[in-house]
Amino acid sequence: MTVRVGVIGAGMIGQDHVRRLTEVVAGAEVVAVADLDAERAARVAEAVGARAAADGADLIGQSDVDAVVVTSWGPTHAEHVLAAIAAGKPVFCEKPLATTAEDCLRIVEAEQAFGRRLVQVGFMRRYDAGYREMKRVLDAGEIGTPLMVHCAHRNATVPESYHSEMAAQDTAVHEIDVLRWLLSDEIVSAQVLTPRSTGNRFPHLRDPQIMLFETAAGVRIDLEVFVNCQYGYDIQCETVGEAGLVRLPDPASPAVRTAGSSRVAVLQDWKQRFAAAFDVEFQEWIDTLAAGREPAGPSSWDGYAATVITDATVEALHTGRVVGVTMKDRPAFYAGDAR
Amino acid sequence: MTVRVGVIGAGMIGQDHVRRLTEVVAGAEVVAVADLDAERAARVAEAVGARAAADGADLIGQSDVDAVVVTSWGPTHAEHVLAAIAAGKPVFCEKPLATTAEDCLRIVEAEQAFGRRLVQVGFMRRYDAGYREMKRVLDAGEIGTPLMVHCAHRNATVPESYHSEMAAQDTAVHEIDVLRWLLSDEIVSAQVLTPRSTGNRFPHLRDPQIMLFETAAGVRIDLEVFVNCQYGYDIQCETVGEAGLVRLPDPASPAVRTAGSSRVAVLQDWKQRFAAAFDVEFQEWIDTLAAGREPAGPSSWDGYAATVITDATVEALHTGRVVGVTMKDRPAFYAGDAR
Amino acid sequence: MTVRVGVIGAGMIGQDHVRRLTEVVAGAEVVAVADLDAERAARVAEAVGARAAADGADLIGQSDVDAVVVTSWGPTHAEHVLAAIAAGKPVFCEKPLATTAEDCLRIVEAEQAFGRRLVQVGFMRRYDAGYREMKRVLDAGEIGTPLMVHCAHRNATVPESYHSEMAAQDTAVHEIDVLRWLLSDEIVSAQVLTPRSTGNRFPHLRDPQIMLFETAAGVRIDLEVFVNCQYGYDIQCETVGEAGLVRLPDPASPAVRTAGSSRVAVLQDWKQRFAAAFDVEFQEWIDTLAAGREPAGPSSWDGYAATVITDATVEALHTGRVVGVTMKDRPAFYAGDAR
Amino acid sequence: MTVRVGVIGAGMIGQDHVRRLTEVVAGAEVVAVADLDAERAARVAEAVGARAAADGADLIGQSDVDAVVVTSWGPTHAEHVLAAIAAGKPVFCEKPLATTAEDCLRIVEAEQAFGRRLVQVGFMRRYDAGYREMKRVLDAGEIGTPLMVHCAHRNATVPESYHSEMAAQDTAVHEIDVLRWLLSDEIVSAQVLTPRSTGNRFPHLRDPQIMLFETAAGVRIDLEVFVNCQYGYDIQCETVGEAGLVRLPDPASPAVRTAGSSRVAVLQDWKQRFAAAFDVEFQEWIDTLAAGREPAGPSSWDGYAATVITDATVEALHTGRVVGVTMKDRPAFYAGDAR
Repeated sequence: MTVRVGVIGAGMIGQDHVRRLTEVVAGAEVVAVADLDAERAARVAEAVGARAAADGADLIGQSDVDAVVVTSWGPTHAEHVLAAIAAGKPVFCEKPLATTAEDCLRIVEAEQAFGRRLVQVGFMRRYDAGYREMKRVLDAGEIGTPLMVHCAHRNATVPESYHSEMAAQDTAVHEIDVLRWLLSDEIVSAQVLTPRSTGNRFPHLRDPQIMLFETAAGVRIDLEVFVNCQYGYDIQCETVGEAGLVRLPDPASPAVRTAGSSRVAVLQDWKQRFAAAFDVEFQEWIDTLAAGREPAGPSSWDGYAATVITDATVEALHTGRVVGVTMKDRPAFYAGDAR
Repeated sequence: MTVRVGVIGAGMIGQDHVRRLTEVVAGAEVVAVADLDAERAARVAEAVGARAAADGADLIGQSDVDAVVVTSWGPTHAEHVLAAIAAGKPVFCEKPLATTAEDCLRIVEAEQAFGRRLVQVGFMRRYDAGYREMKRVLDAGEIGTPLMVHCAHRNATVPESYHSEMAAQDTAVHEIDVLRWLLSDEIVSAQVLTPRSTGNRFPHLRDPQIMLFETAAGVRIDLEVFVNCQYGYDIQCETVGEAGLVRLPDPASPAVRTAGSSRVAVLQDWKQRFAAAFDVEFQEWIDTLAAGREPAGPSSWDGYAATVITDATVEALHTGRVVGVTMKDRPAFYAGDAR
Repeated sequence: MTVRVGVIGAGMIGQDHVRRLTEVVAGAEVVAVADLDAERAARVAEAVGARAAADGADLIGQSDVDAVVVTSWGPTHAEHVLAAIAAGKPVFCEKPLATTAEDCLRIVEAEQAFGRRLVQVGFMRRYDAGYREMKRVLDAGEIGTPLMVHCAHRNATVPESYHSEMAAQDTAVHEIDVLRWLLSDEIVSAQVLTPRSTGNRFPHLRDPQIMLFETAAGVRIDLEVFVNCQYGYDIQCETVGEAGLVRLPDPASPAVRTAGSSRVAVLQDWKQRFAAAFDVEFQEWIDTLAAGREPAGPSSWDGYAATVITDATVEALHTGRVVGVTMKDRPAFYAGDAR
Repeated sequence: MTVRVGVIGAGMIGQDHVRRLTEVVAGAEVVAVADLDAERAARVAEAVGARAAADGADLIGQSDVDAVVVTSWGPTHAEHVLAAIAAGKPVFCEKPLATTAEDCLRIVEAEQAFGRRLVQVGFMRRYDAGYREMKRVLDAGEIGTPLMVHCAHRNATVPESYHSEMAAQDTAVHEIDVLRWLLSDEIVSAQVLTPRSTGNRFPHLRDPQIMLFETAAGVRIDLEVFVNCQYGYDIQCETVGEAGLVRLPDPASPAVRTAGSSRVAVLQDWKQRFAAAFDVEFQEWIDTLAAGREPAGPSSWDGYAATVITDATVEALHTGRVVGVTMKDRPAFYAGDAR
């Protein structure tokens, strides 16, 4: 009953997922690893008793690979996901599903042509206990119809290679997905405000940015993206409805009182913050496959939507204007998604 | 050494200030009360051993009135404040200083012509312990240069007479003043977003509204105004700087654990929330006058600025566009203001 | 209508009360000050336009002294309070009412002989907003019948003159009074546990101590007294009842997130912590006198009870045993006390 | 590399551990299940593709059982653990290790005779993230030398079969173990105070109880055990040291503001509260065995100590006196324990 997984991409995240599938998740086994760097593939594979594959296509084709995890460089995602669909194998793809809306659509169409869901996209926040409890509160109607969402996504620092567009593409994309899911609603426009930039930024970087989204139902979202906030990794989310509000909790941590203050540590790293969410995400994915069911997590349609909204947000940053999101109609095939 | 005060306007707020000056503030005495409703003036005056004056002008002219408090209907503020200046008497005017920028400017000019500060405007938040401690943190540089401020101003409900423009004029005006003071910065533009309105609103009312301000220094402010939030009176303010953030505390209240939850009461009323701030505001005003000094609180210039920014916000609501704030240059006379 | 007050004892607390009665409290005026140090009395008096009295007896006898505040050295309290009663003048006495139970009883008897309440003892916690809200929760039955109370009373440091018995006499006495009032119950026994003492203590000092009290109704109270806790002045109180619990709030203070942690300042000083409580305590006392009513705060009986329970606690510290509290029956005269 | 586990005892906790080892823990497989109720054993075994064993001895003897989990009725623990040691197989025993100190000692001696650690006792709190972070703070010296610990252990309700001695044996035993580990210290005496009992109790039950422990180093511990607190399952722990304190966090949960209050849910169930701790406990145990190392969790010595201290606590409840803990000297064999 063990699900035998092949992992394409053996970088930092790939290695973390190999470790997770081997040491944390029950019912899974990593049998093959592929990477552009063949030596790295071999080293990562050997450590868990797996073999290195020549490349993604080779790995996907191997008969004992039941399911595929794609954690390679973003621009290669579409190729591997399409190959997995062609082989009829379930594929878990780290975000983004593809770097262009066109490629996302090709995946969406290929999957529909295949006739059942094979693709899950790695938006781990849907598996975070705090967001899940928020969704329970919302779905139970405890705060009434949602009207506004206030969010912040802060990283202590980012490397110099991080550029202004990545605030939408790499950072806000997590909120874009989780808010669509949380609200069961679609984002229809984006606007970006640029406060004075932090003096701790690189000269090329607009940081922080304030992103404003509107949904089909008229909910207004404001999202502070601040990737050099210095003090830690901090995720805030508050949804205000007609009858009240619900706020994402901070991670539980002991309070220490010394030297004139009571203080609680702020996490420094997204891997810590969402470690449990990653574990649950993979365990549920493996459980679903082991049970012979279609994956129930973020779909290729969600991957497409995230890319389209991200593109609009980047355009909004460039133009300073409100940019409408132009999205295809949602196919009936994806009507039953978790959202 | 007791400061003898005349109060113009004996409505709900006027009566509360009469009570405060009589029962709470040390060193003050209410000697005269004026109101359009002569009977009400007489009743309120008698209760504290004061006399009723025929009208505002009469009250201001009485020789034992050392200082004047104006809490009458907004459109009458300018007339009373100008009369007090003409009489050379200190005057505390509830917000707004005047309902038009032109009238505010007339006051500013009259006060400059008189040659020393006589006017203080009733923006009580500057006297709230939480805001004061926030300002101390900011001024000490603990969070570095401010970049963004996230605010919410929520009332449980408002009466049907409340209209959409009052979100700026009556509600946001408190944040407009306190943020200018907190940041020692000026607001230069306003924009208003309108989320779907609450089903608990009146048909004529846009509620909630999200107001976006930019300051001269490039700080971006977002302010949720939601005056029918149902659950209580709730004031939130978080300032994010280059090195961290500081958040206004919620009022201290006992936590109760019963029946499956831990809960803390949310106040229902702005008078409760800012009761201590009102007390401090009046005590400091009286102390300043008793010491023969000029008032040190919000000046007529601050009153003018608040009105100009409020006007721009209303225009932004009406037009859906970003509206620049057109303000006179700040006279040197007001350079030493508390901000 | 102004209440004219004479203050006996012009030390740190006396000066603070003179300031409070002059600058904060409405309707009061300090007219006379007495102190063993005549020069200090003169200086403190002059600053507020009062006169120095020769001594306590002289001050109490002056015809324009409507009410007396006793803040002199503890062992002199009884003498001044008895003199005030003899003169039929209301007297506010800082804790302790007297340093021996016998002297407290003499006061209680003198007051009864006089026939109406004249004495109020300075237990200011009953006027703290947090404790008052706790009492409201308890009295409303929100947590059911009280069963246990967990308390902590921590000071950053104390001077070397502080000795082990003062943990009960000077420190725990505040909890002893406020818990009798909070629970509307009487303390019937005391026990003291001595954890290892802090290395930051003086060699002569047992610090911390854990005091265990039982009430007539069977409520168990544990109270940590730790007067060299280093980090600040920190008062904790949690009452557990049959249906839930209520916890005293920490003072509201802005949260600051910088450098890897979210922190809130802890106050350093009891004067800060209970500043508002002192203000309310004196304002209510003055209001009561101005209205011609008997004082409604902690009575001389409460002062007697606190001293008897404190004595038992000291004996418990010395003996290591559970010590029963031997108290007279409460006279009907004190049946209507605030508790 | 999979560790093949046999589970003795298929009751509620046994079934939960079978599920955990099968569905959550990586690298483990349940191969055999034994239970007094043969049908239940068969049913639980079948659901995970395992076989039923005739009884504990049979299960332990089967050659493909690499490790044993004992979750049967407490009085049978010793027999199964001793049998596992005799078979040289690692054994995870739910608390208590044995119901008498004598039986615990027999296990301790058998394990020493075998020459390496085989036994781990199921004190899951040592695996809770909050307690682990508390221990990190303590071990790092952030709050200085510990002086006191304040704890509460509250259950919403217990069934009528729960009796007064179980407050120590079943409930406080968790604190007894985790505090020994947290403080790296030994408990040397116990005392029990009995507040008035809750009216929601059964007539035979003393509830709540306040337990007072002293450690070898002079730390004083107070522990409220209240198993019918009505409002939820609530675990509190605060350690006070010479330089400050550290407090166990409440579980993270969204705050909801509606209808006049801000509230956070309190968990209702210990299985929820410590779900993650159980997962980590078993994953670490399996990882240790898979790596061929001795178990590193709570040892049979810890199981012995917990039983001895529990016995003293029960005697303290019965006698009302301070009862010294009489414990053998800790053998060098157990010197390297995790504590």
